[in-house]
Amino acid sequence: MKNTFGNHVAVTLFGESHGKAIGAVIDGLAPGIPVEEEFLRFQLGLRRPTGEISTARSEPDRFVIESGVLEGKTTGTPICILIENENAESKDYSSMVGKARPGHADYTAYAKYHGFEDGRGGGHFSGRITAALVAAGAIAIAALKEKGVLIGTHIKKIAEVEDRAFGELPADLALLARKPFAVLDARASMQMISAITAAKKQGDSVGGVLETAVTGLPAGVGEPWFDTVEGMLAHALFSVPAVKGVEFGDGFALAGMKGSEANDPFRMAGDRVITVSNHNGGINGGITNGMPLLFRCAVKPTPTIFQPQQTVDYRKGENIEWQAAGRHDPCIVHRARVVIDSVTALVLCDLLAGRFGTDWLANL
Amino acid sequence: MKNTFGNHVAVTLFGESHGKAIGAVIDGLAPGIPVEEEFLRFQLGLRRPTGEISTARSEPDRFVIESGVLEGKTTGTPICILIENENAESKDYSSMVGKARPGHADYTAYAKYHGFEDGRGGGHFSGRITAALVAAGAIAIAALKEKGVLIGTHIKKIAEVEDRAFGELPADLALLARKPFAVLDARASMQMISAITAAKKQGDSVGGVLETAVTGLPAGVGEPWFDTVEGMLAHALFSVPAVKGVEFGDGFALAGMKGSEANDPFRMAGDRVITVSNHNGGINGGITNGMPLLFRCAVKPTPTIFQPQQTVDYRKGENIEWQAAGRHDPCIVHRARVVIDSVTALVLCDLLAGRFGTDWLANL
Amino acid sequence: MKNTFGNHVAVTLFGESHGKAIGAVIDGLAPGIPVEEEFLRFQLGLRRPTGEISTARSEPDRFVIESGVLEGKTTGTPICILIENENAESKDYSSMVGKARPGHADYTAYAKYHGFEDGRGGGHFSGRITAALVAAGAIAIAALKEKGVLIGTHIKKIAEVEDRAFGELPADLALLARKPFAVLDARASMQMISAITAAKKQGDSVGGVLETAVTGLPAGVGEPWFDTVEGMLAHALFSVPAVKGVEFGDGFALAGMKGSEANDPFRMAGDRVITVSNHNGGINGGITNGMPLLFRCAVKPTPTIFQPQQTVDYRKGENIEWQAAGRHDPCIVHRARVVIDSVTALVLCDLLAGRFGTDWLANL
Amino acid sequence: MKNTFGNHVAVTLFGESHGKAIGAVIDGLAPGIPVEEEFLRFQLGLRRPTGEISTARSEPDRFVIESGVLEGKTTGTPICILIENENAESKDYSSMVGKARPGHADYTAYAKYHGFEDGRGGGHFSGRITAALVAAGAIAIAALKEKGVLIGTHIKKIAEVEDRAFGELPADLALLARKPFAVLDARASMQMISAITAAKKQGDSVGGVLETAVTGLPAGVGEPWFDTVEGMLAHALFSVPAVKGVEFGDGFALAGMKGSEANDPFRMAGDRVITVSNHNGGINGGITNGMPLLFRCAVKPTPTIFQPQQTVDYRKGENIEWQAAGRHDPCIVHRARVVIDSVTALVLCDLLAGRFGTDWLANL
Repeated sequence: MKNTFGNHVAVTLFGESHGKAIGAVIDGLAPGIPVEEEFLRFQLGLRRPTGEISTARSEPDRFVIESGVLEGKTTGTPICILIENENAESKDYSSMVGKARPGHADYTAYAKYHGFEDGRGGGHFSGRITAALVAAGAIAIAALKEKGVLIGTHIKKIAEVEDRAFGELPADLALLARKPFAVLDARASMQMISAITAAKKQGDSVGGVLETAVTGLPAGVGEPWFDTVEGMLAHALFSVPAVKGVEFGDGFALAGMKGSEANDPFRMAGDRVITVSNHNGGINGGITNGMPLLFRCAVKPTPTIFQPQQTVDYRKGENIEWQAAGRHDPCIVHRARVVIDSVTALVLCDLLAGRFGTDWLANL
Repeated sequence: MKNTFGNHVAVTLFGESHGKAIGAVIDGLAPGIPVEEEFLRFQLGLRRPTGEISTARSEPDRFVIESGVLEGKTTGTPICILIENENAESKDYSSMVGKARPGHADYTAYAKYHGFEDGRGGGHFSGRITAALVAAGAIAIAALKEKGVLIGTHIKKIAEVEDRAFGELPADLALLARKPFAVLDARASMQMISAITAAKKQGDSVGGVLETAVTGLPAGVGEPWFDTVEGMLAHALFSVPAVKGVEFGDGFALAGMKGSEANDPFRMAGDRVITVSNHNGGINGGITNGMPLLFRCAVKPTPTIFQPQQTVDYRKGENIEWQAAGRHDPCIVHRARVVIDSVTALVLCDLLAGRFGTDWLANL
Repeated sequence: MKNTFGNHVAVTLFGESHGKAIGAVIDGLAPGIPVEEEFLRFQLGLRRPTGEISTARSEPDRFVIESGVLEGKTTGTPICILIENENAESKDYSSMVGKARPGHADYTAYAKYHGFEDGRGGGHFSGRITAALVAAGAIAIAALKEKGVLIGTHIKKIAEVEDRAFGELPADLALLARKPFAVLDARASMQMISAITAAKKQGDSVGGVLETAVTGLPAGVGEPWFDTVEGMLAHALFSVPAVKGVEFGDGFALAGMKGSEANDPFRMAGDRVITVSNHNGGINGGITNGMPLLFRCAVKPTPTIFQPQQTVDYRKGENIEWQAAGRHDPCIVHRARVVIDSVTALVLCDLLAGRFGTDWLANL
Repeated sequence: MKNTFGNHVAVTLFGESHGKAIGAVIDGLAPGIPVEEEFLRFQLGLRRPTGEISTARSEPDRFVIESGVLEGKTTGTPICILIENENAESKDYSSMVGKARPGHADYTAYAKYHGFEDGRGGGHFSGRITAALVAAGAIAIAALKEKGVLIGTHIKKIAEVEDRAFGELPADLALLARKPFAVLDARASMQMISAITAAKKQGDSVGGVLETAVTGLPAGVGEPWFDTVEGMLAHALFSVPAVKGVEFGDGFALAGMKGSEANDPFRMAGDRVITVSNHNGGINGGITNGMPLLFRCAVKPTPTIFQPQQTVDYRKGENIEWQAAGRHDPCIVHRARVVIDSVTALVLCDLLAGRFGTDWLANL
């Protein structure tokens, strides 16, 4: 369904980087869910570029909730959140027309939209659109929290620097919720920033891996075929710009393990069924087993770099050499983290509403 | 949409491992597409266990095309393919009731279906259901071939043994189409079989990685948000039992690369736009760029092993020790390969029909 | 989604009149719903032609539940019901190729499927496909009955003969559930049969109106835009062959009423909100109000008549005169009644599962 | 999918009558379609109340196209159109809380949204939301016109006054496109206005019937089951507030006809297949036959009347008497006409894009 995702709780995205506005419509959320604008602002702040390691473009991301919220609570009808593009540079983009930035969607947009696309700053493909996802996701994150479902993502890796593994989840998730740069190990955090800064100095960029944990999910959510928890999440996660891989539990490492190592033994913990290990990331047969949901996303290095690159002018059909100018991120991994949380929350709201009905999320 | 996938060409799966039959309904395929039952049989043969390295259960997979095909061609109306469960063992499954096989979906099925599920041999979660996917996929594979779109998957890795990388794609894909054990390097092939046999002797199992290439796709297919080519494929691929990770292009390896390494320079090749490298796997911004589509799936080791395992009886709420008996695969990577091809073909037919209309696939 | 309907409980239809089999897949029904094959047979019997007033083709409609039911209860996974075409005449249909039967879909099928369609006996457009709908619907009807939701349809009108209006609904619905020819007023019943017989003698056919009532629906089901109860039901009801109009409550008669006449006053009945009249058919703003759901479907006269008709051979592009031969119904209104009930039940299961979650229908 | 409709071209509605804004997102329209804001304004003008016979609330309906249009043409990405609620009265609605206006959705909204709904002026159920549908539909109407597909609706009936039947369609549709009060027969037009004025004087309201014709549709569009042209159109048309019946071709009148009268004989007109009559409204078996598409919608009288009415306070669980105050329409039939055109255009764009691919609408 193109720019809409979700069968029960659905989110629709619209907007272009340098158009009038970007935004999202969320439909199907239960009525009565508290919506705190302050929390939306906080989440948008996590996505916003900051300091040395990010682009100089800094939008305040002033959003307006145009519908679906009354007196601080969801009404149950569609919520439209609009974010105006205040800081869209008025600069002339005409010199860029026809030039395919390597690693970007300029050429594929042209192949799909025949030149009618808004190519300015990536247009509808711009990472800027994720601000709308983050605003929408903030409502979903808050709703899930009320139901005891907590989501947290840390930067597992940037360049070659690795964060420590998840430990005690309640503590780690609480820690991450407050951190603008979501690394558990303070020393790794500094090394990552150094790696980003070093790349920036070379006019280059770095990528990384984001690792997400979700606690508090009931067992029995998801479908055996197609709408598996893995399938639904991956479908949406691959929309996050620069994500090129998604793995659940031990993921690709499972390929090198024996069955005797990869299986998670079940045990009773009081009257609850748990698993002793969690190599399967909380999912068996596409369905939650009540253990923490665990997955990782590979984020490629930002395609915009400040070095000359070989490419083409696809309108003229000519080879050209081209070098980027302007403001850009040498790394977006740390900014993508809150987008991952947001997408995860929206997909889980969809799955839970489908399983337990519309009102479940609001305890109605 | 639960057990249905696809917006334009949709496939619906039904059936349980030890029920009367399994099957698939494919809807939305263009009329006039040739359907050769011989090719369906050939593809089903690739999925069927063979020799030392597979389960002893060997079903002939006799299918009946109940509708949607007339005089060897699709009619354009829904195609139902039914495969009866001829070899369903009549053995008593009652001793298994309530026992959660580690790594399997018994417990999650119970959490979802409250004990009404058909648990015999995995029921609706059984890998056996993929036979229906393979039969359906065979029609899609043949249709795409007519349009010049070729799909091939090789076993990139089993246990610690790696196949060589893809080389010349037309030649490699032609080679794979004929191979029952889809490994490009003959020596790796033998080592893999040894690794499987060794695991089997230990009552253990191994996993691996499958790598897929698709050539001949036009540029401009896919959507910028949600229904990206990556998202749509991953959604469906995570339905293939045991798949726990999906990555496109260089995938997780991109996380450790610089932007200057990861970007694929564009060049003109005559009047066609190509990329010099293909780290992005033929997709930019969620949309095909006309280069080969490349992705890899992580396949976990078969969860059924012949060693005692800790688990629970979830009906009684008790810890138990349990050991599998009967017939099972020490490795399913080689059998999953044709399932990956099939799923890929069905998803691509869906995307192409959405982009170019219903009749495109049949050249009408 | 083409031949699939429903977002939460979905039904997929397949098959052609003279192909191997027809069938349906129902997905999303709660686990644990009792499935009595005897009731499916009873419902299929209501659809089957009987006596003077119907076609001589009489199929036993032997169905097989291929999946999704175990020990007489739904498992929660997709239910495939297959009905083989036992009585498909082996006669040569080649003389019919290219001839557009007026009022039928031969020509439109050709325009859509380019001549690859199975045209024998209407193919996928045949009313025969509704047998699969009736079998699927029987499961939904039984499930709703357990929840106190009762559905009944009577023949409001055939030719110019009218049945009496609905009176006491519990009594009337109980009466209809037992009647093969669903008319409340015995005298009208006889007059209708006379009208059908008279038309048959003239080689002609008659149509009519079916009126449906549903009691026991909770208030608050349906959506304000698009997925209104009216919209969802009408969407599916227009699939019933020969239905050309659907109206809710007083429907078209509302167009001639004043607001003061059409409004239904609300009143308290104990702690329940009711309406004094029911001109709106139990729906306000697209959402159930807890009063009986009421609607009517216009059924056109059977297009097959035994008189010479002007038409074309669309393959040759020539005008021709043509007269039907063989077995056909002079009226299908009485047979369509159980199809309407079935479609209604499937749509309501979908709406209720979406509103209250998957398990609601099974009291889990 | 709740407040979203369409599989290929989808429209999503949001907003409440007295919230910040209402709007629509249209996704899936081809790139390169001209968007003339002047035409959107013209269409919105047709919906806006005018003169004696309408409510005194008159919003300028100033819309902003927030995304998806660049330099006057669609980009192919989602188009968000926002209309601020400028004239939302600041009056205190608290006296209305809990009072169920007969014929309105107050009580059903409460049953669904548990009191969290925005009840002011009907909230999300308000006819005001149709302004967003009209703006979205204007783009679809213009796109279809470029492809030779013309849509026109006339007021077939208000109260007891009937307009003449459609005659020469090209001329009649051209006439209607210019008429604010869409009646073909000038005398009937005056009588209708008299009937509305008379009802208004009595504090009462009137309903009517709208009849729509669409010319220029290719044959072969629509699906045999579920996504029939009738089903898809009816699904969306029942969202238009006050529509309680939809019939195609001769609709309910077919119920009283003989097969020999209802069948439309086919004939060749040069190399084109036509029908001599059009009792089936241009659709056979759910699929267009190339003849004009014809349907009618029953519009109930406006529920708001200026007479005391029996109703309840559903919060208090008490019977009350209540009388409306403020501004309201004694008739909305003439205003609903452009909403019907808009909905029709959006559904047809969806069906055509599904059939012929995304680019078809733009001749790409």
